[in-house]
Parts: sequence; C-alpha cells; structure tokens
Amino acid sequence: MKNGQARVLIENVKPCVDNGLYPVKRVVGERVEVTADIFADGHDLLRAEVLYKKADEKEWNILPMQNTGNDCWVASFYVTQQQPYVFTLRAWVDPLKTWYDGLVKKINAHTLVHLEFEEGAQMLERLAGTDNTKLRNAVKRLRNKSQYTANLNWAKGSELAELVDKYPYRRFEVYWPAEITIVVEPRRALFSTWYELFPRSASFTGGHGTFKDVIRLLPRIEAMGFDVLYLPPIHPIGKINRKGKNNNVRSEPGEPGSPWAVGSDEGGHKSVHPQLGTLEDFRLLITKARARGIDIAMDLAFQCAPDHPYVKDNPQWFKHRPDGSIQYAENPPKKYQDIYPFDFECDDWQNLWNELLSIVQFWIGQGVRIFRVDNPHTKPFRFWQWLISNIHQTHPDIIFLSEAFTRPKIMAALAKLGFTQSYTYFTWRVSKEEIIAYMNELVHTSSRNYFRPNFWPNTPDILPYHLQHQGEAIFIIRLALAATLSSNYGIYGPPYEFCENTPVPGKEEYLNSEKYEIRQYNWKQTNRMTDIITLINRARRQHPALQTTWNIRFCHCENPHLLAYVKYTDDLSDIMFTVVNLDAHNRQWGYVQLPLDLLGIDGNINVKLHDVVADERYTWTQEWNYVELDPHRLPFHLFHLTVHESWA
Amino acid sequence: MKNGQARVLIENVKPCVDNGLYPVKRVVGERVEVTADIFADGHDLLRAEVLYKKADEKEWNILPMQNTGNDCWVASFYVTQQQPYVFTLRAWVDPLKTWYDGLVKKINAHTLVHLEFEEGAQMLERLAGTDNTKLRNAVKRLRNKSQYTANLNWAKGSELAELVDKYPYRRFEVYWPAEITIVVEPRRALFSTWYELFPRSASFTGGHGTFKDVIRLLPRIEAMGFDVLYLPPIHPIGKINRKGKNNNVRSEPGEPGSPWAVGSDEGGHKSVHPQLGTLEDFRLLITKARARGIDIAMDLAFQCAPDHPYVKDNPQWFKHRPDGSIQYAENPPKKYQDIYPFDFECDDWQNLWNELLSIVQFWIGQGVRIFRVDNPHTKPFRFWQWLISNIHQTHPDIIFLSEAFTRPKIMAALAKLGFTQSYTYFTWRVSKEEIIAYMNELVHTSSRNYFRPNFWPNTPDILPYHLQHQGEAIFIIRLALAATLSSNYGIYGPPYEFCENTPVPGKEEYLNSEKYEIRQYNWKQTNRMTDIITLINRARRQHPALQTTWNIRFCHCENPHLLAYVKYTDDLSDIMFTVVNLDAHNRQWGYVQLPLDLLGIDGNINVKLHDVVADERYTWTQEWNYVELDPHRLPFHLFHLTVHESWA
Repeated sequence: MKNGQARVLIENVKPCVDNGLYPVKRVVGERVEVTADIFADGHDLLRAEVLYKKADEKEWNILPMQNTGNDCWVASFYVTQQQPYVFTLRAWVDPLKTWYDGLVKKINAHTLVHLEFEEGAQMLERLAGTDNTKLRNAVKRLRNKSQYTANLNWAKGSELAELVDKYPYRRFEVYWPAEITIVVEPRRALFSTWYELFPRSASFTGGHGTFKDVIRLLPRIEAMGFDVLYLPPIHPIGKINRKGKNNNVRSEPGEPGSPWAVGSDEGGHKSVHPQLGTLEDFRLLITKARARGIDIAMDLAFQCAPDHPYVKDNPQWFKHRPDGSIQYAENPPKKYQDIYPFDFECDDWQNLWNELLSIVQFWIGQGVRIFRVDNPHTKPFRFWQWLISNIHQTHPDIIFLSEAFTRPKIMAALAKLGFTQSYTYFTWRVSKEEIIAYMNELVHTSSRNYFRPNFWPNTPDILPYHLQHQGEAIFIIRLALAATLSSNYGIYGPPYEFCENTPVPGKEEYLNSEKYEIRQYNWKQTNRMTDIITLINRARRQHPALQTTWNIRFCHCENPHLLAYVKYTDDLSDIMFTVVNLDAHNRQWGYVQLPLDLLGIDGNINVKLHDVVADERYTWTQEWNYVELDPHRLPFHLFHLTVHESWA
Repeated sequence: MKNGQARVLIENVKPCVDNGLYPVKRVVGERVEVTADIFADGHDLLRAEVLYKKADEKEWNILPMQNTGNDCWVASFYVTQQQPYVFTLRAWVDPLKTWYDGLVKKINAHTLVHLEFEEGAQMLERLAGTDNTKLRNAVKRLRNKSQYTANLNWAKGSELAELVDKYPYRRFEVYWPAEITIVVEPRRALFSTWYELFPRSASFTGGHGTFKDVIRLLPRIEAMGFDVLYLPPIHPIGKINRKGKNNNVRSEPGEPGSPWAVGSDEGGHKSVHPQLGTLEDFRLLITKARARGIDIAMDLAFQCAPDHPYVKDNPQWFKHRPDGSIQYAENPPKKYQDIYPFDFECDDWQNLWNELLSIVQFWIGQGVRIFRVDNPHTKPFRFWQWLISNIHQTHPDIIFLSEAFTRPKIMAALAKLGFTQSYTYFTWRVSKEEIIAYMNELVHTSSRNYFRPNFWPNTPDILPYHLQHQGEAIFIIRLALAATLSSNYGIYGPPYEFCENTPVPGKEEYLNSEKYEIRQYNWKQTNRMTDIITLINRARRQHPALQTTWNIRFCHCENPHLLAYVKYTDDLSDIMFTVVNLDAHNRQWGYVQLPLDLLGIDGNINVKLHDVVADERYTWTQEWNYVELDPHRLPFHLFHLTVHESWA
C-alpha cells in the first residue's frame, strides 16, 4: 500500500531495445525522440517530463513532454557528445493545469466561478512562495472580488495561461522505474562510403600488388568520394590445403590462395603477408589514407589455415577427432579442409578469447579504427559482446561491421550486442515492394535503435542474379539505390566499376573470383560508372539529408517500376528527392506525389528541384508531377529539393 | 567473462505482459502456448525446453520445444488447477543431435564415416553411464568395425535416430533469466452469459420490485440460459439532489432516483435499499439463484450521494471547496450534483482504501462472487491493483468486470492490473471490417493474455445508433454476434428482449431510462427474441467451441454483408461455424470458403453442417459454398460442423 496517491501510469517507453537489455544506439548529433503511453484515471490533466543526462553526470536535464493524442506523449533531445547517455521519465496529475482547463470552460459556459478563483489562488499562492512576484500578483488579482467581471476575461487570456503552463504544480510524481542507456558513436558509424579491393590486385603493372600499390590508388579512391577502404585479410595465407582458382580444392604451385585461410609458417593474425609488404608499409598506408580522409577497414577472420602457428602452439583451441587430427570446417556433406575453426566450447576458452582480443588490440595499435568482421554468426554471441564492449571501454570510436548474411534474428542479435554496422538483405531486395517493405522494417521498427544498415550491391562472395549478364544500367540503379537509401553503403569496387557480370553458372558467385587469384585492373581507366559514383558520393558529402538512413518518406507513384522517396534533415534545411527507374531495360514514366505535409506546404506549391547528378533544374507547382526516366540515358533523378514562397 | 561456452540466445518469450510486469491470465483447463526465438551461432542443432510448475511446487515439469522455422520454438501445456503457475525456458547446443544430423548427410553422400562413428560412440558412452543397455549396445555397434557396411544403414534408421532424440546431450545450458507468472482463474472468467435487470422493475404486478420478485424471475432467466444475473446498485439511494425522470436535475416527490447515487440516511454501501427488501432477502436471492446455476453480480459504484453516511462520518475522504462545501462530480462545464466522488489523493487515503476494501469483503461475506465495477477508470489504477490482489489472495475465484468505456490504453491497463473481464468496443463495431479488425486485435495481439472481453449489444447507458428505431432483425444480429464471437457476453435484458429502440433524440441513450424510473414489464410474455436467446445460449452450453473467445478463424466471403467464422476447440472435437448477415434489411447471399487447413482436410471434402438454431442440415463437398440469409426469416446460421470421411 505504497505510493497510493500517485495516479499516473507510464508504459511502452521508446526508444528501448529488448526492454533495456541492450542499449539504444545513436551517433553524435542525432536526435532521440522519446515516446511513452502516459495516463491517469479520470479527466484530470497530466504533465510528463523526460529526464536525460550523460551517464557520468549527476544532474538531469529536464524536458517537458507533449501529449500527441491517444495517451501518447513525446519529447526529443539531441546527443552531442560521443559518450553514453541515459534517460528516464516522470509524470504526474497537475491540479493547477486541471483547474485552469475547467475554469476556462466554465467561464465560457457563463458559470459563476468565484469559488474557482479562490481555489486557483490557493494553489498559485503555494507555488509562489515569497519570491515570485508574478504569481503573487496573480493571486491578488484572483482574490480581488471588485474586479470579478474584468477577471473573467483576464483569466481566459494568455497571461494566466502562461503562468499555469510555466509553473508545474508537482504532486505525487511517478518515476518510470528504469533508465535507458544510449550509446553514442562517431558520425562515421552512420555515414560511411566503402570501397573494397584486394591489395594483391592493386599493382599498376602486373604481378602481386603491395601496400605501396594501394597507396598509389588512394588519390583515385578519394576522387570517387569514398571514405573507407576495406581490404580482405592481409595476413600470411595458409599453404596446406590451399585453394586454387575458382575454389578448386587443389591449388597449382604459385597460386596465391584465399586470404581468408589465415596463417602459415610466415605468421598468423598479427602478421602481414610478406608479398604485400611490411607492417611499416601497412602503417604508412593507414597514415596516407587518413590524410585523405579515408579509413582503412581491416578484415577480422577468426579462423586458421592448417599451418597457422596457433595450431601448433595452442592445439587445445581446436577440436580434435578420435584419430588425433584437427576438425576442419564443414557444413555436411561439404568440407572446407583449408580452414580450422576455433573450438569456442573448449576448456581453454578464456585464453582463446583473450588472444583474439589481443589481435584486435594489436591492429588498433597499428592505427586501424574499422573492422569488417567475417562471418561473426559462426562465433558465439557472448564472445562478440565481450570483445566489442571490452574494446569500446578504451576505444569507443572503433567501428565493427558485421558480415552476417544469415537468418534475420541472428543478424539482429549481433547488432544488439554491439556491432556498429551490419550487412543487409538489400543485396537481394530488387522490386519496389521489396525495397519499401525492407526500408520500413529497418527504419520504422525497433530495429532502427540497434541495427545500422550498410548496403552493398555486390561483395566478393555475391554477384546477385539481377546483375549477372546485365549492362551498365542495372549497376547504376543498384548503386544509386544503395547510396541514397542508406547512409552507409559500399561496393566491391573494381568489378563494380567495370560492370563485371559473369557468374559461376547457376550461382551468385563471380567466375574467376579474386578470392582465389590475382587480378589485373587498368587503374588509370575511368568510365561513366566512375563518374556517376563520383557525383553521387559528392552529393552524399554535400547533403546532410543523405547522411542519415532514418529520415525517409516514400512517395506515391502509380508506376510499379518507379521508386520515389524524400530524405531530409530533422529541421528540413536539406531535402533530397530521389526517383529511380527500377527497370533497367525500358523507359518508364508516371506521376509522383510530393509529400506536402512533410514539406510543410498547405497552400500553393512552388518547389524547385535540382538534379545534382544530371545538373538539370525543374519547378513543380502541382502535388502530382510527371517524371520520365530512360535507363539508357540515366535511370534515376537525385534532386535537391527546395520549397519556395508561392507567388500567389 | 562468465558463461563463455554457452552459445544460445533466448528472446521474445511469449506469452508475456509488459515484459513480466503483469501476470498472464488463463482459466482452468486452458492451454498455454509458449513461443520464443531461440538460436545460436553456426549450424549446430539446438534443443529447447519449457519448464513449468504450479507456483508453490518445487519440481519443474519439463516440456521439449519444437522448432517451427525462422528460429521460432514452441511448446504447449495446460493449466488444470485454479492457482498460479510459473514457467521459464532453457536451451542448449546439442552436439549429439548435431553429430547425428551430419552423419546421415555424410552417409547419404557416400563419405567414409569411421571417425564419425567413433565420435558418436564417445558421446553415447558418456550418456550411457553404466546402466543404459540400449545406449551401451549402440556404442558397441558403432565401434564394431567388421559391421561397418551394415552399420551405415542401421545408423540412418529409426533406432539410432530415436536414441539420439530421446537422450539429450546437455552441455552449457542457457536459462532464460525470468519466470513468467500465469494467474489461473475459474472457467466462468472466460465463459459467462449475463442478464442485467433493475430489481425495482422486477414486480409482476406493478409498484417497486423487490428481491423476492427477482427470485420469482429466476426460472425465466434460467430458461433463457443465463448464468450471471447482474443487478445495478441495491443500496439506499440519495435523497439530496436526487435525479428525476430522464435525468432531470430535480426529481418530483416519489421518484425513485438513480441507484448509482449511493447512500442516504437509510445507509450506505453495506446496506440494501429498504424498498428492495432486507439483507436476508438478498442472501436468499443469492442462494436460490446459485441453485439454478446463476451467480448474482453486484454493482460496485464507489461514489456517494450527498446524504451518504460517509459524508458526515468521514468528510476527510472528500474534496472541500473554499466555502466549506464538498466538491461534487463534474466534467466542466457539466455538473453532477447528486454525486460526490471520493478524493483518492486525500491525506487519509489509506483508511479510505481499507474501507472500500471492507465493502467488497462484506458482500463476499453475503455470498457475492461477481462484481461489475462502475467506472473503474475514474478511480486510481493502483487502488484497483491493490484491492483486487488483496481480495484474490483469500478469494481467487472472485470475478471483477471492468465497466470502463474509455480510451484503449486505459481499458487495457485496468485489465492488466487485475480485472477479470472488461466491457469492450463491440457495442460500436458494426461493419464486417470493424468486427474482424477488432476481433483480431483482441485475439491475436498481446491483449489476449490479459484482456477478457465481455460483449454487450446494449447497456442501461447505451442504446447504440444502429439499434435506434430499428426492428427485431438487428437485435437478433447483434445478439448472435455477441454470443458467438465472445464467450463472455451479456444484455441489458428486458429492453433487449422486447426490442426497445427509442432514444433520447440525438443521443445513444434510452428515452425514459430505467436508470431514473421504475418500469413495468410483462414478465410472463415470451417472444421470438426470447426463443432465439434460449437456443443460442443452449448452443453455448452444449458446445465447448463457443466457450472460448480465443480459437476463432474468419472465413473468406466476397459479400461484405456476410460475416463467417469458425470457432473450435484445441483438439477440433467441437467446431462451430457461424455466418451472419449484417444487413438487417435485405437478403444477402454469397460463397463462403471453408478453412480446409484448419479442418485438416486435404483430400475430398465431406462436411456436415447442422444449424442448431434453425435445426437445418446441409452437406458441403466443395471448398466454396453458397449461403443465403434473409433477415426477415433468420439473419444468421449457427452450424455445428463435423468433418466426415470422404466417400471417394
């Protein structure tokens, strides 16, 4: 029988991940919109407040919430520092606000309100104490019976209303019993543009590429507007059971093997492949890249080739078979004899975890700030949770990208427990309906609070069916979608730039995959695709609306091949309007509806559009507007949209 | 760095109300279907179990869960005793199951499995200990190299598969960290049929009715098949500011007043109105009713007329105005001067709560087991939570019906914190779309675990627009819907039986409402409506499918006026199929689809239908079947459906 006079209930607080089991994620500068169902018995009026602070501060910032109807309340704040924040809520029945609301209704109904005036005066008197002249004056006025008639108008006016609004009458406050943690990460966690290449294919002249060759490629990558350069594993490659060209189980002498078969007599996860250069070369690459605003993303592939030093030095970390051999990776009946997985269930798991942590720490020591984690879903969830939180305690700015192309709940769990960014199903979402449904799932469900998508039209593992044997148009379409739907996107660069479209027959894999051989590219060549990538990435840098994934609104268009959407900043100071023709083969046209409510237009329409890729300009004065896109010319519009005063 | 070898995650456990803040509700004999998302890294196979028990038991019952795809697991149990149950979950990666799955795939791919046989033998050996002959024999067989070829077939066969299935290999189990409580209430909480009448109108001969008159009405109520008789407040009625006919603010001498204005110099909430009889008469009514299987439901209206004894004896429980008067109820600018609400925020709130609790205890002492609570949403949530849990500690079988016709989150909260049943929006859900959407919300969302609907086509407060000035057909339609959609339903009986349809103009209220005057009914009269009520209620008693609200499936029908649905028992031993013509004025026809998957029909169709109201019989041999309903004859079919072996 406690708290009996407290009449408010607070429920359904958002944002919140698994009822507070995992933190909510934001980046520096992002908004946190707190909503909750808040209500009490009867007709009395409530007040509600969000309390928020940096986790290590003592004092709360207090933010009044607004009732948006159906007992839903809302308030927003911005997280401005890269450190954890917390928030909670409180609410109460405000008898002064309730009194004032009733008073105005009674005055309007011509009821006598002498008693009401005195009731209000008593509450205002208690609030005023001895100091508050404004409140004391209001009390005097309400009690001045000779002014009764004049007071009727005054009471309905703004002065008393504002006093009542400004001075909450606090009584029997209810605090929501939990605090929700918000992890605030660097802006690059939400806005990053990735280019992937195999450093061994970086040579300008043929032969095995080196870190120095990659340094020579940096101006090219910078010019295209990428700010993350992701390299597949750079460690020595196993020599035992090395894979040959096209995933052949036997390699010919001289074949380079798969970089994901990590480790040989030349070293393991803390070594670099001698043919790529030295550790010093790699550090120089990091430094030179950073000078151009590019971060090097390193691959974390926690598995070993049979000749990895760990196998000899720490055999207890692997599963042994009855004949004494070590269990290679398998997905029965498939065998992967060039790879030994770690046995995370082994008795010595704590030393194994610590050693793997030390690998990440080693490369952070070399200057790495971004890790692309290979197949995290084949290592235990609790391991990643432990490793990432451990790293973030001392290096909160380290970014981990989860390469888990697997079942939805597993991808979500990895994101909840700490991964900064995640690969997604975008790679296979092709139709208008699929894309809208997927975006709405990512943006408008709880997912938005923990799962930061990174959209990839291709990867070294995936040449999706819709790109196979196709021309430039579909490559442009998929790039434009990735780059404008998601603020994090990336391409496995060289084959994408040059529209490589030949698969292993019947599979979504590249024929003659670079995973198993060195390729030679003409790095001096640029083409139309290079130019379009450059223009799109420039738009992403210039337009904050494209630097978030969360502010998107799809626009109606009757043509099922035309996908239209607006992206915008919270304050609408930057609005980008994209229309994509999803049909790579045919001209498509149709009418697209402007989202007038979002744009704040309720009178005449005067909207200026500037296509920042094609450099074309339009003025729209109607709600529905004709758009026509020819894939053989350019299959998309990327408009900067501005709303102008109407002439009318 | 704890629990590092445990690889399973358990999420999204259902049923669960507000993450366990409130208990899940069931009645005796109901099923609890537990579902959860359960998954681990990699491709290994899992096992999951539900652990459940009565809350006061020590030992858990263990129930294996089944994987139904997309990482969702399910298991069901029945709660058979009227006492709280709890459940939780555990799961783990089973290396033996994983081994067996791989073994079969490898054998099928003609891989050599000598090592695999030994690996399995080692695990089975550990499980076998010294006792288990079956397992020890399997170990021997796997190790018998001379039998290798024969073993390949044996290993794929049912014997080894069953052993692996029967003997879980437990290692690194993960327990879900919470226990969910299930409150198990009496069956009447879910299946009840209510008739409401004003006892003062119960006289057969005119004048003020009495409890003895109500006793004389019991055979009539029993014959119609009702099992709850709900009486508006039976207490002395305030004489000060008493309301007159049609809610007139002044009553004429001799007018009876509203029974919800509780209390006068003749007594308060623990007294009976002298004109109804004595407390002994009321106890006799309870006894006589119970002998016929009828419970008397009492009205709990926690408010006072100005002359209620509390006002004099406990003025501190009411809000006083600056002039010393007591604050009457108001919803500005409306005034309800015949009612003083309690001030639940008063300093003496603890004594007030205890006194109100003592009222409930007093009437339980007189034999009352069901309370219909008047406007619970105008008294604090925490008060109800405290009162109901207090009563349920000693009397777990007491039923509280929440009369809160208010905003959705408030109605939900009252149900969560303890009310057994709730009035609903059914009263205003008229069209096919509205009814389907509302039923799906009640049955297929979290609501199902705490909110038990009680459907009322009318109440003394509500004559909905669709019944006003209408004929018998719509009264039959709304009754059939209420009684077959919801297992709890009720009618404000006499006006419904006699199709009273005259409102206060422009309002959803009865003209000459019984709330303010005594009515005279011809209790000896029965009519077609009485007969239909009787037949429908008989079907409800005879058919368990109609005794639950939760097992419903709507059936496709292209006619928007025809609503068709199947209700069924978990084991399909009883299936009722209802088709209602929602158009009270016109004959409607169309084709209705049988839900073949639900009925377990995958070959030829041979379904027998018996309309238990019209006593007509049909045989359907097609998936889509013609139905025609004439509202001037009977606007609904209520079929008992049986699936027969096909002749084919």
